[in-house]
Amino acid sequence: MKKIFLIVLDGLGDRPNIELQGRTALQAAYKPNLNRLVKEGQAGIMHPVSPGSRTGSDTSHLSLLGYDPAKYYTGRGPFEAMGLGMTVLGGDIAFRANFGAVDANGVVTDRRAGRITSGTDKLADVLSFSVDGIDFFVKAGVEHRAALVMRGKGLSDRITDSDPHEPGLKVREVKPLDEKGKFTADVLNKYLSMARKKLTDHPVNTERIREGKEPANELLIRGAGQAPTLTPFSELFGMKAACISGIPMITGICRLVGMDSIAVKGATGRLDSDFRAKFEAAYKTLNDYDFLIMNVKATDIAGHDGNPIAKRDAIQRIDTAMKDIDKILQDTVVCITGDHSTPCAMKDHSGDPLPILFSTGGIRKDRAKLFDEISCTEGTYNINSGDVMKILLQLSDRAEKYGA
Amino acid sequence: MKKIFLIVLDGLGDRPNIELQGRTALQAAYKPNLNRLVKEGQAGIMHPVSPGSRTGSDTSHLSLLGYDPAKYYTGRGPFEAMGLGMTVLGGDIAFRANFGAVDANGVVTDRRAGRITSGTDKLADVLSFSVDGIDFFVKAGVEHRAALVMRGKGLSDRITDSDPHEPGLKVREVKPLDEKGKFTADVLNKYLSMARKKLTDHPVNTERIREGKEPANELLIRGAGQAPTLTPFSELFGMKAACISGIPMITGICRLVGMDSIAVKGATGRLDSDFRAKFEAAYKTLNDYDFLIMNVKATDIAGHDGNPIAKRDAIQRIDTAMKDIDKILQDTVVCITGDHSTPCAMKDHSGDPLPILFSTGGIRKDRAKLFDEISCTEGTYNINSGDVMKILLQLSDRAEKYGA
Repeated sequence: MKKIFLIVLDGLGDRPNIELQGRTALQAAYKPNLNRLVKEGQAGIMHPVSPGSRTGSDTSHLSLLGYDPAKYYTGRGPFEAMGLGMTVLGGDIAFRANFGAVDANGVVTDRRAGRITSGTDKLADVLSFSVDGIDFFVKAGVEHRAALVMRGKGLSDRITDSDPHEPGLKVREVKPLDEKGKFTADVLNKYLSMARKKLTDHPVNTERIREGKEPANELLIRGAGQAPTLTPFSELFGMKAACISGIPMITGICRLVGMDSIAVKGATGRLDSDFRAKFEAAYKTLNDYDFLIMNVKATDIAGHDGNPIAKRDAIQRIDTAMKDIDKILQDTVVCITGDHSTPCAMKDHSGDPLPILFSTGGIRKDRAKLFDEISCTEGTYNINSGDVMKILLQLSDRAEKYGA
Repeated sequence: MKKIFLIVLDGLGDRPNIELQGRTALQAAYKPNLNRLVKEGQAGIMHPVSPGSRTGSDTSHLSLLGYDPAKYYTGRGPFEAMGLGMTVLGGDIAFRANFGAVDANGVVTDRRAGRITSGTDKLADVLSFSVDGIDFFVKAGVEHRAALVMRGKGLSDRITDSDPHEPGLKVREVKPLDEKGKFTADVLNKYLSMARKKLTDHPVNTERIREGKEPANELLIRGAGQAPTLTPFSELFGMKAACISGIPMITGICRLVGMDSIAVKGATGRLDSDFRAKFEAAYKTLNDYDFLIMNVKATDIAGHDGNPIAKRDAIQRIDTAMKDIDKILQDTVVCITGDHSTPCAMKDHSGDPLPILFSTGGIRKDRAKLFDEISCTEGTYNINSGDVMKILLQLSDRAEKYGA
């Protein structure tokens, strides 16, 4: 049985760029190592979730790891909370939240508290406490953004938002959508009322009012979602698994399925990340684990920035950083792909398919010679992301026989 | 409407072989007839069941014939019984069985009765009888192996094994797993008690004891499975269908769906099979039938043996044997593929996809030119085995229009 190293170059897929003479970032990049892996292995086209699906990183990573998002993606709440680096456990109820400004009558005057830029971490600090046996956790994000996580027995996400979604309206009482949501709505309303008091009295807000700014005196919550209870990856696939990721949300998903998260010094989840350090850490990790998923975020960032030169250069630096990958190739199945396309021309995720490569000792070599969106159509596969784990299991000689 | 000839070269797919300078057996084989069929037809890549699935011959043949194994594969019992050449009907309960040795206290001393090599056929002969309206059939296999089939009304596979799975333990009473299994467990316990007496008194065993060998005095049964009740192939597809197969299990599956089985003199299901005789029999059979599936086992045997030279040579001899296939091509859709890959380097089934070709008069000709795992990626299809029957129906002008 071999080990498995799944490398996800985030937002890898591209569309033609004028700045690159009509080529995608991958086509334009000098990438001898990626090309060699294709030449000495198999390639193909992979659709995130299914052909044409325009996926987020959350849904596509779930799918790549073998968890069908149609079954397990329970809305943005839990995944946004993970994205802020919060621990989310199966069964937790999580919400996207805003720090908003509310007047004396409970009417929202600004859903973003004057686009507050600092102090929300201090506000969040006083909002993590327990009510009626339920633990509440709040973490601040960028500007007015935050997330709320509820943990305890008997919780349900069948409840309404407190956020009225428009200024000039009163903060809403949370209501149950069915019998199961009743307890959650009750304890949440109690919590929000206590939180309101703590926020109103908080020095950050007395200071803001003194400065003539909108106070951040209400935690407006929306999009309740219950974190799915997922069969641990180790149980599902019989492998001891780890992740290396600079993106909290991806790390959160991997931890939700029971993987260990390996920290890498110099890995930032940004364009300046130390890719070499990530690969070196990966090779070391593979000594102790059967399965490693490594996410590299830089390609996605350049895509969102609409910067094809930066995207091409990031690919080139990633390629250089993996130059020693041959040393693990005999006994490891290496798979490289992305989670979705982030075309520079679009500055956002698209539903375009992605190239995918598989390489290991003794593998069939197919016709594909270069690692890009077009050349990989000459390869073996035309698959959905949900097929990847099964192919990895069979290439690593770990697949159970189905029948006799 | 055309006729259909589906040729399954068992375990056809391969991985690179050192002995063949890094080529698969198919790549290395001289196979002008297979190549001509590709050149004058369509080709592609087929995944048994789904991408990455590592299938047995049972599940993949069910799938190829249009019966989804996720719905109809009910465990190894019925398929192992078919594999011994037993008749298995929909609703029958079948078991894998061992002839084991048991002491006076009912404790298993050897689950394989000293790896008994002869006489089990004679033991099996006395074990086929009826109890309480239920017919029992036993057939001996290789060494200590056998299968048991129960036929009658009100049977269920919701019962436990009598085999304790380890020596030193008592033979277990069969117990129902739910209310439905109660009658089956009762009648089976009665049967096993009667069988025990017949085995103990059998001359084969008195002789073995005299020789100081372990007696084969207990039929240890495990893995109860109820044979699926399948819509007959003729009803499902409106075709009179036959099979030519040297492998009892494949013949059994074909009979289970109501096909006639055509015996061919010289067809052995081994490497020395008379392929020419099989093809001649096939052409004759196609005069009387609309659909013929023919399994050739030799490729799989060479794969399991880890012998790429033998696999290449088997392909070459099969190719030579089909040299007259053009004479049926105008009015018959010929499809050639495998049921799964059996790479010589692995000596077992893998989940690698297979090449597939379709040829007939008037068919579109695509880019693929050679019949092998790599060249066929240039063709039209990238499909799962469950798609094959639909493609065959449409190419033979037999498909119902879906819509108007």
